[in-house]
Order: sequence, then C-alpha cells, then structure tokens
Amino acid sequence: MNVYEQMKALGIQLPPAPAKGGVYAPAKRFGKGLVYISGCGPVINAPGNQPPKGKLGKDFNLTQGQQFAKACMLNVLAVLEANIGDLRKVTNCVKITTFVASADDFFEQPAVANSGSQLLIDLFGPSAGAPSRSAIGVNALPGNIPVETEALFEIDEENA
Amino acid sequence: MNVYEQMKALGIQLPPAPAKGGVYAPAKRFGKGLVYISGCGPVINAPGNQPPKGKLGKDFNLTQGQQFAKACMLNVLAVLEANIGDLRKVTNCVKITTFVASADDFFEQPAVANSGSQLLIDLFGPSAGAPSRSAIGVNALPGNIPVETEALFEIDEENA
Amino acid sequence: MNVYEQMKALGIQLPPAPAKGGVYAPAKRFGKGLVYISGCGPVINAPGNQPPKGKLGKDFNLTQGQQFAKACMLNVLAVLEANIGDLRKVTNCVKITTFVASADDFFEQPAVANSGSQLLIDLFGPSAGAPSRSAIGVNALPGNIPVETEALFEIDEENA
Repeated sequence: MNVYEQMKALGIQLPPAPAKGGVYAPAKRFGKGLVYISGCGPVINAPGNQPPKGKLGKDFNLTQGQQFAKACMLNVLAVLEANIGDLRKVTNCVKITTFVASADDFFEQPAVANSGSQLLIDLFGPSAGAPSRSAIGVNALPGNIPVETEALFEIDEENA
Repeated sequence: MNVYEQMKALGIQLPPAPAKGGVYAPAKRFGKGLVYISGCGPVINAPGNQPPKGKLGKDFNLTQGQQFAKACMLNVLAVLEANIGDLRKVTNCVKITTFVASADDFFEQPAVANSGSQLLIDLFGPSAGAPSRSAIGVNALPGNIPVETEALFEIDEENA
Repeated sequence: MNVYEQMKALGIQLPPAPAKGGVYAPAKRFGKGLVYISGCGPVINAPGNQPPKGKLGKDFNLTQGQQFAKACMLNVLAVLEANIGDLRKVTNCVKITTFVASADDFFEQPAVANSGSQLLIDLFGPSAGAPSRSAIGVNALPGNIPVETEALFEIDEENA
C-alpha cells in the first residue's frame, strides 16, 4: 500500500499546512532530492484552533505529549506535501529532531517522540519510514508550545 | 545585485571570523557543495569585545535578542566566507537552527531568530536566502551567550 | 594508521552498540554516502551497567561531563560500525551536536563536547576527523542522562 492508502486504512487525514510562524521557508529543497522541513508545532490549522501551551511534566502528561508529537508530524507531512506535491515521492525519512518543552524533572522525551516516528513507519514502512532521531528536552519553545519537530526527507527527484 | 553589492547597499560589513571556541571545524564541507557552519555566538571579533552574557526574558529584551541573532548570522557568514573564499558561490541557504538562551517563560524565539534569517533573505534573495529553520529555547548556552546559530549552505562547487 | 590501528595505539575498544531507546533507526543512510547517527547517551552497553543520571553543574562536574561525552562518541561509533560494517570506510566526520543537560548556570558545554570531537580527530585525523559542531545546554535529556550526541558522517559508498 502506498502512503495515501495507508492513511486511508489508518483513518488519518492530512491537515492543511500550518501557518508560517516567522521569516523562513517551511520546506527547503537541496542537494539531490533532499528536503528540510522547518520546526512544526502541534496546532492543527483549522478555524478557531489555538495551539496548546505548556510543558510536559508540569502542564501536560505523557499521553498528551504523544498526541502533540503525532500532530507535529502530521504538520510536517502537510508542509512536505505542499512542497513536493505528492507524498508518494518520499523514498526515505532521514532524520527528525523532536524538541519537548519539559519541566526540569521530565525525562520521557523518547516516549513523547515515539508517536511521531511511529507515524512515519506506519505510513512509509519499517525501512524507509524509520528515521534517525534525537529527542531533546528544552525549557521553552516558541509560543509556549509543548512539542516541536523538524525533519529531513529524501524524495525521488525525477518525479519531484 | 550580488551579495557583496547588497551588503554595500545595506551598509553591512562582514566582521572577521570569530575565534574558535573548542575542538571542532568552524566550517565543514561535505557531499556535493554542502557546507555546515558550526554554532556561532553574537560576539563580533574585535579587540576588547566581550561576548554578551545572559538569557532572553531575564537579562535581555526582544530587541536586544534580535541584535544578537543578526550578529550570530554575520559571524556565520564570516566563517562561511573564510571557508569558501567568496560568498557569491552561495546558491542556497538550506537550514539554520537558532538556539535562544531563555528564561522559562520566554517564548519569542521565532521573533529573535527572524533577524538572522531576514539577513540571509536580504543578502541572497527571497528564494535562495530563505532557510528552513528551527528556533529553540534552551536554559544555558556556551559561556552564557544569549543566542547561538548553526547553518547549512549549498554552494556552487565548480567554483568553490 | 587507520582508525583501528589508532584505536589499538590509544587503548580504545569500541563497546557493543547501545540498546535502542525508542521508535527510530539508530543509523540512517541517505544521499550519496551520508549516514546520520541518532542521539547516543553515555551508558556503555554491558551487563549490569546503568546510565548516569543528572545534570552538569549540579550532579556532575566538568571532568565527569567529558568522560560522558567521550562515552557518547564511542557509542556513536559503535552504532556507525554496526551499520556500515567497517569504520575504515569513514571519509569525513561532518557534524555533531552535543546536548548537555545543564544547571541554569552551567556554561561549559564546549569543554564537555571537546572530549567527543577530540576522539574523532584522534581516530580519523585532524582534517577528516574534525566535525562541524554545536554544543548546547538543555534542562532535561531522556532518562535523565547528562549528555547526548548525534552525528553525521560521510563514507566511501563504493565500499559500504
């Protein structure tokens, strides 16, 4: 099954790409078929939606953090699709970095990040989908969002 | 206008490349025309200059943070020029990560980082100059500097 | 001397690759001969070994931090070897990011990270071994480990 068939099977729908939060390119192509996706937060772009605000281990628990990390990844994929036109061109989920706004005694950043990387595996398969990863706790993220994920993908340039 | 003509028009002069702060390569070439620039702080390399020390939201305000982020980017470009010899070889500002030393309740990292990415756009144009970006708050940076930026560029290797 | 001869001369032995701490690929190949290594902590994979827990400037001093950063890099190299089969294929240590769990007033992240980048230089030589680098303080790392390093390498793909 391709990525869109997987989405359908899993009941996943890509949200519209998130609004840009500053002076940068949401996606940037470089090299031969490489695409960097700028750090995405968890707010789904829909009328009236407000971003969640707070830190893991203080304002949010692990389950909420995992929902946020999955939403970040949906936003990453929405930005990627907006840039390359068709997610079936993705050949490799190369690297993600998930930053988790954390209380000083919250140490479950990997469990938070897992829901994002699992989504990539679910959609692109265990080999192409599993990214290299760092999951990092920080004391403050833009707009007080709890999770932010950036990503590097490789695509089939012939068709991109 | 090329990058040097833009600098002249904007009254911008590149500082000398910053002193190296550890065991690493300030710039590293790899792949086909890719160059990573190590994390740069905001201190301009001139006799008697001391780096600013402190955190945004505690010791420095947003305007100061933006001056720091712009200075970080000038240092990034100084390191890049020292490595490739001529900034006109730059074809693509691929990715920057701006780390902002932040009080636990400071959340304007993107506004801080904007002054650095805006400089790239001013100098290299809205397409090649706009990088993918993450702007991340952290509780402590080397030497207590308030802002640090690392960057990935693509250059015309034929002439590099 | 090649990397294994250097290891022998320096009395360094690679540990077994660390256990995976989540849903991701420990190493991911991409592009032409590029390999990202996921963030590695300092625990050496041996029966009964427990990861160190705590922050620099609070629970651990600089010397300990440097031992941790070196151990992180040994783990990075163990993951790399497990992926590419032979470290003599490494042609370029491109980039490392060392995250240091830090008290709010600990600012010696570069001195911590130096022991990791120095190891690369010792093993791969001053040119290929010296990576681009950022050394970043953060308030919380996975499992309360004190140091985490991720890395990007370039390898000779013909033989990889």
